[in-house]
Amino acid sequence: MNKNIMEYETVDLDDNDSSVVIIDQTKLPGTTEIIKLYTAQEIWDAIYLLKVRGAPAIGVAAAFGIYVLSKGIMKELQQAKDDCGKMDVLSFEEFYEKFKEQKEFLNSSRPTAVNLSWALNRMEAVCVKAGREEGKSVEEVVEILHQESIAIKEEDTWVCKTIGEFGLSLVKPGDGILTHCNAGQLATSKYGTATAPIYLGQERGYNFHVFADETRPLLQGARLTAYELHSSGVDVTLICDNMSAMVMKNGWVNAVFVGCDRVAANGDAANKIGTSVVAAVAKRYGVPFYVCAPTSTIDYNTPTGADIKIEQRPAAEVTEMWYRERMAPEGIKVFNPAFDVTDNELITAIVTEYGIARAPFKESLEEIRKKKEAVKE
Amino acid sequence: MNKNIMEYETVDLDDNDSSVVIIDQTKLPGTTEIIKLYTAQEIWDAIYLLKVRGAPAIGVAAAFGIYVLSKGIMKELQQAKDDCGKMDVLSFEEFYEKFKEQKEFLNSSRPTAVNLSWALNRMEAVCVKAGREEGKSVEEVVEILHQESIAIKEEDTWVCKTIGEFGLSLVKPGDGILTHCNAGQLATSKYGTATAPIYLGQERGYNFHVFADETRPLLQGARLTAYELHSSGVDVTLICDNMSAMVMKNGWVNAVFVGCDRVAANGDAANKIGTSVVAAVAKRYGVPFYVCAPTSTIDYNTPTGADIKIEQRPAAEVTEMWYRERMAPEGIKVFNPAFDVTDNELITAIVTEYGIARAPFKESLEEIRKKKEAVKE
Repeated sequence: MNKNIMEYETVDLDDNDSSVVIIDQTKLPGTTEIIKLYTAQEIWDAIYLLKVRGAPAIGVAAAFGIYVLSKGIMKELQQAKDDCGKMDVLSFEEFYEKFKEQKEFLNSSRPTAVNLSWALNRMEAVCVKAGREEGKSVEEVVEILHQESIAIKEEDTWVCKTIGEFGLSLVKPGDGILTHCNAGQLATSKYGTATAPIYLGQERGYNFHVFADETRPLLQGARLTAYELHSSGVDVTLICDNMSAMVMKNGWVNAVFVGCDRVAANGDAANKIGTSVVAAVAKRYGVPFYVCAPTSTIDYNTPTGADIKIEQRPAAEVTEMWYRERMAPEGIKVFNPAFDVTDNELITAIVTEYGIARAPFKESLEEIRKKKEAVKE
Repeated sequence: MNKNIMEYETVDLDDNDSSVVIIDQTKLPGTTEIIKLYTAQEIWDAIYLLKVRGAPAIGVAAAFGIYVLSKGIMKELQQAKDDCGKMDVLSFEEFYEKFKEQKEFLNSSRPTAVNLSWALNRMEAVCVKAGREEGKSVEEVVEILHQESIAIKEEDTWVCKTIGEFGLSLVKPGDGILTHCNAGQLATSKYGTATAPIYLGQERGYNFHVFADETRPLLQGARLTAYELHSSGVDVTLICDNMSAMVMKNGWVNAVFVGCDRVAANGDAANKIGTSVVAAVAKRYGVPFYVCAPTSTIDYNTPTGADIKIEQRPAAEVTEMWYRERMAPEGIKVFNPAFDVTDNELITAIVTEYGIARAPFKESLEEIRKKKEAVKE
């Protein structure tokens, strides 16, 4: 068995803050390889090639990345000055110009990932505030970037853990839990979202029996969720997506926990394709269906799921990818949506870091927003 | 595009009745290879290795196979006699002894396939009746075996076509139809069961839009159903099993047609794993769900679906098969049932060659039995 995934950091800084340290997720589940990303190109490639993936984890990687690169920019400017024998302080505007270049470059690695630009914008905002508005030295600005990147990671861990606590209150020791895709530790700083109740339960001896949907076509459930839960000693059984009805009918599942990409104001939840199939089956067999959603994924400006645009992906993912040989005829039409929307009436509750929302969701999600705002003030 | 599958016979005799001619289904969808099976070993291998598959098609292959082998036995006996210069007629008992050997050998190729032993027993019964009870010559017995094998194939074609006619009455031109696994032409003599309404509609310009579930883990939908419908010019779109909710929610599906392996007396239907997921999703979105069932699959001695034992298959089908590399961790637990049972309350109707049964199924399936018995008498 592989080393317990909980002993790894999905994204981290090395001891000298000179590189971003990640688990290369493209090598999973075969090999657990820890790699260090030193250059802008290496960080860009890691995000683009999905070596690091999952919206929260990408955000943390980008924040650490721009901090590491900022240190490099500072050193370079210092070196140039030393070479000329100059003794004056480094210019923030010179630093910021290069910071901005690197930030834009990293931001181009996955343009549709909201957390990527969100984290980079947040880093830029503290950079500008400290250097330009508060007149802090470049050295001080770099240290502020350091603290901000750590804060982004710690906040993500707090969100996941808090969702986990709320989620755990919905189940009991020995329960069967089904999850779809990977909203796990590998997609976040720690604990994951849908897996957070599972990991917290594992720490407390709950002995859950988990079923992981393999999640066609890209098999994140088989490759990542089964891997991380298995390596953590969780009792996990891999099933094909079309077996959910049978395990529920057999009475083996007490709750479904899934992550989400976007929750509309009415509670409709967009998540990995197949989530709404699980929800319909859970409804049929009376199994509660819980969406684990950091409040950052609740989009109050999107009235319903019908307003969420669903990404269509290449046919080859279904007809060829992973396969030794073609497994569908040449020229066949393929419908390959990356996500689907689960109707709010199929959702038992939406679990956030500010509490559990139940129907009617328009009202309960509004309550969550108020709670969050009250804490921030 | 490949040649239209409807121009091929799934199972046939060659022009001299010296071999069984089949499409090698293990080569699909890449290559459409027609192969001829001359010897007992070749026929046995073809069934064992799934070169010919689908309960009805296996039955026809076995019937043709034992007829071809009977011709060989007769020739051999004749040759032995000629070599000795004897002029007396061939002994039926001598013929029957060798017939029985070959029959038992073929029957061992897939012991669990009901249609295999059913077809071989039917061939043996006419053999014994003609040769032993009616004192017919070996030449006459062989010709009777010839006629019986053709009758088995023609009856299968009639059953499928009749199911198709009933099924067609449940949909209208331009409809969207979803199917799961392969209950197609490739599994029968002609038309298939679940695909029969589609093929008949195609002949009559109905312009259906068909969605084929890929059907994990063995991908019969992607490899076989998508292939045969596509090659026949049917507008077919391949989807992963977890996309059914999305295409139904989009309003693209007017009816689901699936095949079945066994129908219990109360209408619960066992079919390829995932069928009951499709049924739950169809119920959710108000799409009628039709099970196409030759009456031979209705098991009046099995009261409910709970009495149907479900075959468990190897984990490697989920974790490794078809894949260039492992796509789930070593040592992971896997639940891999080959079939599932769809609750009768999720089934809109069961379409048989003796009519359409609707709830309450215990009564309606009894009516079907009476109709069938009335015809046979």
